[in-house]
Amino acid sequence: MSASDTDLANAIRALAMDAVEAANSGHPGMPMGMADVATVLFTRYLKFDPADPAWPDRDRFVLSAGHGSMLIYALLNLTGYARPTMDDIRRFRKLGSPCAGHPENFELAGVEATTGPLGQGFAMAVGMAVAERHLNAVFDDSLVDHNTWVISGDGCLMEGINHEAVGLAGHLGLGRLNVLWDDNKITIDGATSLSTSEDIPARYRASGWHVVSCDGHDTADIARAMDEALADPRPSLIQCHTIIGKGAPNKQGTSATHGAALGAAEVAAAREALGWPSAPFEIPADIRDTWLAAGARGASVRRDWQERLANHSDRVEFERRMAGDLPAGNVVAKAFAGWTSTPQNVASRKSSELALDVLTPLVPEMLGGSADLTGSNNTKAKGQQPLTRADYAGRYVYYGIREFGMSAAMNGMALHGGVIPYGGTFLVFSDYARPAIRLSALQHARVIYVMTHDSIGLGEDGPTHQPIEHLMSLRMIPNLDVYRPCDAVETAECWALALEKKTGPGLLALSRQNLQQLRTGGEMLSAKGGYRLREANAARRVVLIATGSEVHIAISVADRLEEHGIGADVVSMPCTSRFDAQSEDYRADVLPDGALRVSIEAGVTWGWERYTGDAGLRFGIDGFGASAPIEPLYEHFGLTADAITPQIIAALD
Amino acid sequence: MSASDTDLANAIRALAMDAVEAANSGHPGMPMGMADVATVLFTRYLKFDPADPAWPDRDRFVLSAGHGSMLIYALLNLTGYARPTMDDIRRFRKLGSPCAGHPENFELAGVEATTGPLGQGFAMAVGMAVAERHLNAVFDDSLVDHNTWVISGDGCLMEGINHEAVGLAGHLGLGRLNVLWDDNKITIDGATSLSTSEDIPARYRASGWHVVSCDGHDTADIARAMDEALADPRPSLIQCHTIIGKGAPNKQGTSATHGAALGAAEVAAAREALGWPSAPFEIPADIRDTWLAAGARGASVRRDWQERLANHSDRVEFERRMAGDLPAGNVVAKAFAGWTSTPQNVASRKSSELALDVLTPLVPEMLGGSADLTGSNNTKAKGQQPLTRADYAGRYVYYGIREFGMSAAMNGMALHGGVIPYGGTFLVFSDYARPAIRLSALQHARVIYVMTHDSIGLGEDGPTHQPIEHLMSLRMIPNLDVYRPCDAVETAECWALALEKKTGPGLLALSRQNLQQLRTGGEMLSAKGGYRLREANAARRVVLIATGSEVHIAISVADRLEEHGIGADVVSMPCTSRFDAQSEDYRADVLPDGALRVSIEAGVTWGWERYTGDAGLRFGIDGFGASAPIEPLYEHFGLTADAITPQIIAALD
Repeated sequence: MSASDTDLANAIRALAMDAVEAANSGHPGMPMGMADVATVLFTRYLKFDPADPAWPDRDRFVLSAGHGSMLIYALLNLTGYARPTMDDIRRFRKLGSPCAGHPENFELAGVEATTGPLGQGFAMAVGMAVAERHLNAVFDDSLVDHNTWVISGDGCLMEGINHEAVGLAGHLGLGRLNVLWDDNKITIDGATSLSTSEDIPARYRASGWHVVSCDGHDTADIARAMDEALADPRPSLIQCHTIIGKGAPNKQGTSATHGAALGAAEVAAAREALGWPSAPFEIPADIRDTWLAAGARGASVRRDWQERLANHSDRVEFERRMAGDLPAGNVVAKAFAGWTSTPQNVASRKSSELALDVLTPLVPEMLGGSADLTGSNNTKAKGQQPLTRADYAGRYVYYGIREFGMSAAMNGMALHGGVIPYGGTFLVFSDYARPAIRLSALQHARVIYVMTHDSIGLGEDGPTHQPIEHLMSLRMIPNLDVYRPCDAVETAECWALALEKKTGPGLLALSRQNLQQLRTGGEMLSAKGGYRLREANAARRVVLIATGSEVHIAISVADRLEEHGIGADVVSMPCTSRFDAQSEDYRADVLPDGALRVSIEAGVTWGWERYTGDAGLRFGIDGFGASAPIEPLYEHFGLTADAITPQIIAALD
Repeated sequence: MSASDTDLANAIRALAMDAVEAANSGHPGMPMGMADVATVLFTRYLKFDPADPAWPDRDRFVLSAGHGSMLIYALLNLTGYARPTMDDIRRFRKLGSPCAGHPENFELAGVEATTGPLGQGFAMAVGMAVAERHLNAVFDDSLVDHNTWVISGDGCLMEGINHEAVGLAGHLGLGRLNVLWDDNKITIDGATSLSTSEDIPARYRASGWHVVSCDGHDTADIARAMDEALADPRPSLIQCHTIIGKGAPNKQGTSATHGAALGAAEVAAAREALGWPSAPFEIPADIRDTWLAAGARGASVRRDWQERLANHSDRVEFERRMAGDLPAGNVVAKAFAGWTSTPQNVASRKSSELALDVLTPLVPEMLGGSADLTGSNNTKAKGQQPLTRADYAGRYVYYGIREFGMSAAMNGMALHGGVIPYGGTFLVFSDYARPAIRLSALQHARVIYVMTHDSIGLGEDGPTHQPIEHLMSLRMIPNLDVYRPCDAVETAECWALALEKKTGPGLLALSRQNLQQLRTGGEMLSAKGGYRLREANAARRVVLIATGSEVHIAISVADRLEEHGIGADVVSMPCTSRFDAQSEDYRADVLPDGALRVSIEAGVTWGWERYTGDAGLRFGIDGFGASAPIEPLYEHFGLTADAITPQIIAALD
């Protein structure tokens, strides 16, 4: 006997309130409020197979309202995923349980994205939907043909990034994106009317979305709305009128259910109200079986798909791309072997463009873009066509003035798989994208950030546009590799390194100003993160450590020191995180204790103590920049060989 | 003879194209395109007096599209402000000129906000409009009765923060806010149609705005639209249909005019087309006179206002608040004198609330709020009433889930003057607000950020919600004081310090978990940034340096070390920037060379080298957090006296 929709939904409600109760921490309101909607989605609409969570053509489901994590944990368990087990759920929010406070893609298959920071799940889903349409165009319907589903709360819709995500999705006509809005009229502070008067459907329509509404507790009405959403060619917002904490008789409909355990008395009352006599974490057999049957819906669909794939002429390429492997034969290294031997005395943003000209034809999964700074970020390679609603096969996205939305969308693309997204803005605006950059790092997403105009070297635009603290504060994000190459060879190397790292993001900080080429290829030195670019001639007393454009200043300083008979190494440090990962011997060899170690970087000096030691000197900028042409600026801030050399000599005395 | 509107506007155009030409850098397109609109605004509508740029009841004008900086420089010069002089303008974008690449409020009176980072000027204007209505309600129409005007481009409207700003303004019914949208259909990458399909007026209407459009080159039509905007009780978006670079005959209407000098040939052609025979930087006398007359419009209005003020019963209080002075008599110190001697063993977020309960009645200019985390941030003091469209006298803003919008609005409030804004979110979401925090620091705005849940100590919410790199990377923003108090006394002290600093923002990082009170008042020690909280008992061999909740771990470690006969100081370091500003002697006394210096902070260890030196030890967390209750978390990350003490003893051997 098949259990009713209500039974199925109540299983979610029970697990949510019981797990939160056991943890004495968590968010029961959303899972209880959206249990009916989720039941309809997972039992009738969502294309998935718990036996193969990585099935490339599965629908993607993103719980943008990540605090309602028990919703997805319950769904994964009930539909038959290997994890979370009921023991995992019992240990919700305990050390070592994959059922973390917020859903983490690296903990559980079936969790497509790490969510919780509001607004970003929705925006990542937009990126997933872009990747789907792009791969559909590159391959065909037989391999790529799936929907992206999102559950969002009011928080996700109120965040600024929502505007960017909605605008991008509407502009690109992502009709396979369907957002289930948990319209419960409650936020943490109370009624939504405390803080907003927006007509949300009207806003979505203004950006080219289709909007349909339903009673979020009437499964037939929910299904009708989903059918309408699927039938409409536009992205759809499905307004689900719900009651937060539905089933908790004394607290439902209030913010009291949002972010705290209901308490034993209310849980007991909810059991009564829901007619749910089972003990905590126990699911009656008929309900368990019905859920498992729903989870098994996708098995035959997946088998058919796998048969199509097996016989498909593009099978090998498709599998390579979905596995995230670069094209065979060390294509990246080969690509650079030739051109880097011709000196390119250009800005590193330009040598990045040259690298892209070489790479993008060889690595077809690279999908580029810029937040309206294409000509400044040099992100568009030769021959790259725009990705538009008329041509999803294009490989360049005009993201518009949407740094955060772009970055979150790139996270979604990387998580979807099959593409390697990169996108540009000015380094100073990494601040706008920072929450998404952090999520790239946390959720192991291979996203490549191309951040140009990386110092006061951008000149006249002035302090609002000049990064100061950005390089160092980005380096502090765990699992983010920040690259600041000093010439065309290092730029090519850094691109290769970023592409080759499957388990996290890379960020390239690139100059606006021209830089002489210092190397002629050869060994891949940037892989070490820092290395001796030039060895002292006289007996070594000084080691100059610099990055990017300041390596050129370091070389001038070294020249002057050598003129004084003072030997000075120049160490280029394009990537501190890679340097930190080298052996102690290697690091001690490059940065020896005996020498005066001196850092030069046009940013905050704080942090460089790690490499110069107490006795070292640190040249940089510890206040805001200024508006002027580049040369007077570097003079003004004392970042010239003239200014630095005597200070080093004085320190040696 | 009075010059025509066209002549007046062409003076702006000429100055813009000539200054950009001289600098060979800058953005002529926007000033040329919006010259007619700006002329109407400044000659007929804007209430201002160049002789008294700080006149409290002036209209506020924010150039949100800050790249068009030559527009405001031209306007300030033409209407008779003391600066910029024509020489300043000739030196546009040169070192030392107040005419920086983007407008900077600290360079020029008449520049109300530092703009350029897109979207923020608009959002700051929302804050200014809130401050205006609030002060109007606190005082009356005779003292506070002005409008806020904004010029915004498509970039400002496309940024995510615009959604937050529009939502807040619509919700609060800020009818005195009028936004002139430079609708030129061009962005840097080309036509707006490359990246957006949005019906912008419909979106604004959906959030409770009034929208009116006009021909941005027809001054009568512009005036009609402004009249309608002023008459409507809602905030108004005035859609100005314009041609970017209007007047440059071969380039106008294209992105080529946006961000580069037009070139000598095109400038000559523009002179021809505009009928503008004057040499660069020369303004014909009749045009100069007409502009000056327009600038003089406000003088009598201001004199009348000053007369009203002179006779107003609230004159002294009004002047105090607008000057940014705290109430007389060291009210802050007095306020804390009493209660801090009663131990408050509560979370620092809670002691912050206790401080607010004391402070907000004494400092009526404090205007609080939270981005939908009121109960978690503990930002609402006893008796604070909500600021709503029905009661602008309220002193608590329910900002909604709008961290960035809140922060930018607070910048606007602080820049407006008369209020001291503070607002809360979780520390991890400082990333969402980071671009506005940076602008607080850059533009010297006294904004107080209340950021709770400041470490893994928040527990179960897990890595998405646990700050790791945040404390250190915030400390790297110049002119931002980051405070992390260790108990109720330090929390009170940090509040006092943040309030007393008129020239920049403060950020309080506060715990979710309870903290024992360690001090009993007395001297204001936090002012030093770092100080010896507890002196070694045995001969000092170790100095433990910690912040916030980790000070309590340091004390336990010190206890254990003393049990081993090892003397250990405990240094509390609530504010590194203040510590760095102390004398070398003081710093050397607190952090002596002879001892093993050990830092303990539940965040990245990078950066602490500055205080521990090479030989020191640094305990912290250099990867992402985890989801679990607080105790197992601290154990997991090795941040316990049990884990730390033996490592220190080993290092001493």
